[in-house]
Amino acid sequence: MAFSATHSTTRIVLAERPEGTPTASTFRTETAELPAPADGQLLVRNRYISLDPYMRGRMSAAKSYAKPTPLGEVLPAETVAEVVESGHPDFAAGQLVATYGGWQSAAVVPGKMARRIADNGLPESTALGVLGMPGFTAYAGMAEIGRIQAGETLVVAAAAGPVGSAVGQLAKAAGARAVGVAGGAEKCAYLVDELGFDAAVDHRSADFADRLKSACRDGIDVYWENVGGKVLEAVLPLLNLYGRMPVCGMVAQYNATGVPEVPDRLPGFMRAVLNQSLTVRGFIQTEFRAKHWDGFQQDMARLVAEGRMKYREDVVEGLENAPEAFIGLLEGRNFGKLLIKV
Amino acid sequence: MAFSATHSTTRIVLAERPEGTPTASTFRTETAELPAPADGQLLVRNRYISLDPYMRGRMSAAKSYAKPTPLGEVLPAETVAEVVESGHPDFAAGQLVATYGGWQSAAVVPGKMARRIADNGLPESTALGVLGMPGFTAYAGMAEIGRIQAGETLVVAAAAGPVGSAVGQLAKAAGARAVGVAGGAEKCAYLVDELGFDAAVDHRSADFADRLKSACRDGIDVYWENVGGKVLEAVLPLLNLYGRMPVCGMVAQYNATGVPEVPDRLPGFMRAVLNQSLTVRGFIQTEFRAKHWDGFQQDMARLVAEGRMKYREDVVEGLENAPEAFIGLLEGRNFGKLLIKV
Repeated sequence: MAFSATHSTTRIVLAERPEGTPTASTFRTETAELPAPADGQLLVRNRYISLDPYMRGRMSAAKSYAKPTPLGEVLPAETVAEVVESGHPDFAAGQLVATYGGWQSAAVVPGKMARRIADNGLPESTALGVLGMPGFTAYAGMAEIGRIQAGETLVVAAAAGPVGSAVGQLAKAAGARAVGVAGGAEKCAYLVDELGFDAAVDHRSADFADRLKSACRDGIDVYWENVGGKVLEAVLPLLNLYGRMPVCGMVAQYNATGVPEVPDRLPGFMRAVLNQSLTVRGFIQTEFRAKHWDGFQQDMARLVAEGRMKYREDVVEGLENAPEAFIGLLEGRNFGKLLIKV
Repeated sequence: MAFSATHSTTRIVLAERPEGTPTASTFRTETAELPAPADGQLLVRNRYISLDPYMRGRMSAAKSYAKPTPLGEVLPAETVAEVVESGHPDFAAGQLVATYGGWQSAAVVPGKMARRIADNGLPESTALGVLGMPGFTAYAGMAEIGRIQAGETLVVAAAAGPVGSAVGQLAKAAGARAVGVAGGAEKCAYLVDELGFDAAVDHRSADFADRLKSACRDGIDVYWENVGGKVLEAVLPLLNLYGRMPVCGMVAQYNATGVPEVPDRLPGFMRAVLNQSLTVRGFIQTEFRAKHWDGFQQDMARLVAEGRMKYREDVVEGLENAPEAFIGLLEGRNFGKLLIKV
């Protein structure tokens, strides 16, 4: 390897496992020296760090779909980064990549975990949003599970978020009716006025279930579940025969610490599954990478260029503000894809 | 139409909608005169009446996957019957058919709702069991949803029943491991000794969840859900990645009158769906009739002939005993496909 000066990184590590909502003491900021990249590795400088709800799961020791982050280790995140020094033949210094750089200013990563950012005329940050993991989650889940048809009705929870807004716009592009559920009048107006949803329902409204019913006169064919909680409850009686329910997140439950002491809703859920011949399917987008990634990049870039796939970013400046931004994300305070600009 | 004497039928009608478990006053026995069959109709004499858990749903006014039986009307059931007089060109007097003759001694039915019983060398009653609706439910649900592979593990609840026993034997025929859940030592012994299940677990045992875990060392790939309740709870932590859950019945809930006051298990269920990328799919066998019925008749008759698909019937003599037999069915007191011999 070429001679290389050491590089330092400022990083945020998991200081303690949160009980319920993370707090300031969940996180600790450190400075560390990074080694030069070995063969196959890249030294990168992070430019944008993606904060996503699934990260709450990594902070717990409990079984989830990914391994927990060990205490004292840097919190994981996908990042857009510039290659500073390359030990991998496919990459050169100065190139922009999407990789798993974590909550830090610089990182040494395996080259096989990096991908060149396509030259599609869009801002580099979209590689973490509409053209990255959230956009792909929407695309693959609709292709494999939602399979919405023209004339059908889709309801998506967390509709103003990066996954939900893509899901709704994909439904519109397929000729279906899109109904979004979001928190607050501003997000609801955005869904209808900016993204072209047919209707939006504020889950904070007292008569939420009635409003949702009014917005879904022909019932619901696809319910995109990424929240959990009361949205699902209001959706259940409206689901049509052969309804589909892609399940890609449970953000409302990520902070839960025990079994809620309310009446058991599982029997009612299973009755709906049986009575309406529903398909409920959990998934993580990695399952569909090999099959759909290339088509996703092409289709999504085209929809964006045609103005049929809009996106919104919520960019927070400064790594030091990541913990507070993440806590706000779990509480629904952000509006658009949450990114840290390093 | 040819001249025809009137025929009388003894029938059991829905006297009142049961709250919880049906009782004697749910039912009323009547005698009525039947008209001669009109064009397209058949006058049939029922020989066997099939009693099935789904009938509990028809007794309630609540929304289900089929319309409720109106008060005062004869309770619906599939039957094996002899054609007494035919107004349909495809049928002649003396032929045996499977049709929807109801809880009565004779009926006038549409010819299009009848099918000739295939001459396959098996007793006519099998047209209501292993070669009828229960057997087809198992066959179609495994073909379309369970899709079990050699080396995988299946768990089926109500395993000694007509659907469950067929499901387990289909899994064995596919080279998979079959674990049955049933109530009591006699049924469990039957599953292993007679049907060739790899293991059986008594859901009445105090350490049921531990026993199930011991019987499923490699986890569970397919859980066939036709019961609801505590079996599902014990299954959830054992399900493997990409597990499938065909849902074709909720017998444990059919008598439920309200929302159970226990901790809410829906969040835990949805977490399992997400973490393990599960597929949960409700279905009624009619959905798959056109696609799979002919293959079912051939495959199942062959498996029976080869001794790889055994079945058991619980035949109760006398229409007057149908109500008590049905109540026992909901409580798991029968052992084998419950039939009334008229």
